[in-house]
Parts: sequence; C-alpha cells; structure tokens
Amino acid sequence: MNEILEQALLFDFYGELLTEHQKEIYEQFVLEDLSLGEIAKETGISRQGVYDLIKRCNKILQEYEEKLHLVEKFLKIKSKVHQIDSILNDYQETDSRKMAEEIRKISGEIIEEL
Amino acid sequence: MNEILEQALLFDFYGELLTEHQKEIYEQFVLEDLSLGEIAKETGISRQGVYDLIKRCNKILQEYEEKLHLVEKFLKIKSKVHQIDSILNDYQETDSRKMAEEIRKISGEIIEEL
Repeated sequence: MNEILEQALLFDFYGELLTEHQKEIYEQFVLEDLSLGEIAKETGISRQGVYDLIKRCNKILQEYEEKLHLVEKFLKIKSKVHQIDSILNDYQETDSRKMAEEIRKISGEIIEEL
Repeated sequence: MNEILEQALLFDFYGELLTEHQKEIYEQFVLEDLSLGEIAKETGISRQGVYDLIKRCNKILQEYEEKLHLVEKFLKIKSKVHQIDSILNDYQETDSRKMAEEIRKISGEIIEEL
C-alpha cells in the first residue's frame, strides 16, 4: 500500500485519538494534500514544526495499529465482501448451488475475523 | 447488551491499550469471571483497589469506543454477514435470482460500513 493511502486509513480509524491540533494539521497533510510549506504558512507554525508534528502523528497512529490491528482486520473483511460481490456479478442461474456454496465459505471466513 | 458481554467486547477490541497490570486484573474479572474478593486475594491488592481498577478500565475502554465506535461498526457488519448466512441457509434452487439480489444488497451495505 502506498504511504499516503496507509496514512489516510490510519487517520480514518484512529484519528479521533489525536489532539484537535494534531488532527487539524495531519488532516491538511494527508487528506487535503497540502505541502509542509503551505501548512506552515496557514497555521503559523515553522515548516520544521509541521514536519515534526506529522512525523509524531504517523508514529502515534502506527502504534495504535500495531496494538489493535483494526485497519488490517477491516481490509481483510472488505476484500472478502468484494469477493462475494464478484461471485454475484458472475452469477449464472445454472451455477446457483455452487455460487451459494462459495458465498457461504467466504461469509464463514468473515465471521471468523469478527 | 448485558454489561459483562459489553465489557468483554470492549476488552477484545481495545484491551491492548491498557497497561499490563490493568489487563491482567480486568481479564480475570471479565473473561475468567472471578469475584473482586478472589482477584484481591490472588493479586495481593485490596478488594477496594481491585474495584477501583476495574471501574477505571471500564471508563478507559468506553472512552475509546465513544471516540472510535469500532465495536459498534463490527457488530453491524457481523449482523449483516449473519443475514447473508441465513439467506444461504434458506436457499432454494428456484429462488436463486432473488437470493443473489438479496445478498448483493446486504454486501453493498457492508461495504458502506467499511
């Protein structure tokens, strides 16, 4: 996964555990795609200050994921639900029994994740 | 949801964010179903100390859930996957098109949660 997507996912899951100030800066960097210089200018913090804050946020969010693994879990479930969707899209009346079996297998795997 | 089940779920999701000491005591109370007196005796903490620690852990775990809502999200997904399973169990060859439609609807709802 590319770094920005990973940061966006981590922020989506654990962002509420950052302080308001951290959230505000991190959101501008990760979701609004502003540069360090732009954020520095807008917030009145030094460019180095913004850099340090983002680095610190990355570390905090990654530590939550290392402990809780919830992003990892969600991505697994998402991929399995997409598998179900793809089976349904390839659906042919004649294969319905096989389709039901395949979906049942995947839904069982999802339940195990939950 | 009854209180012990809720505590067990919260502990399952956010328990790793407690300290080792908190985890150890809380686990004995919630998962192993020991009484305050039994935990006090086993750990050498006073009964009141055990009570306070468990109350504090409840508060910490509930605060994580209030911020992240991940237990709530997982329960919704779980219920929907069980719906898919139940549709598959009622499966009749003649109804396969309808079955596929129903499952597609639910899997779409799950994707929206993710």
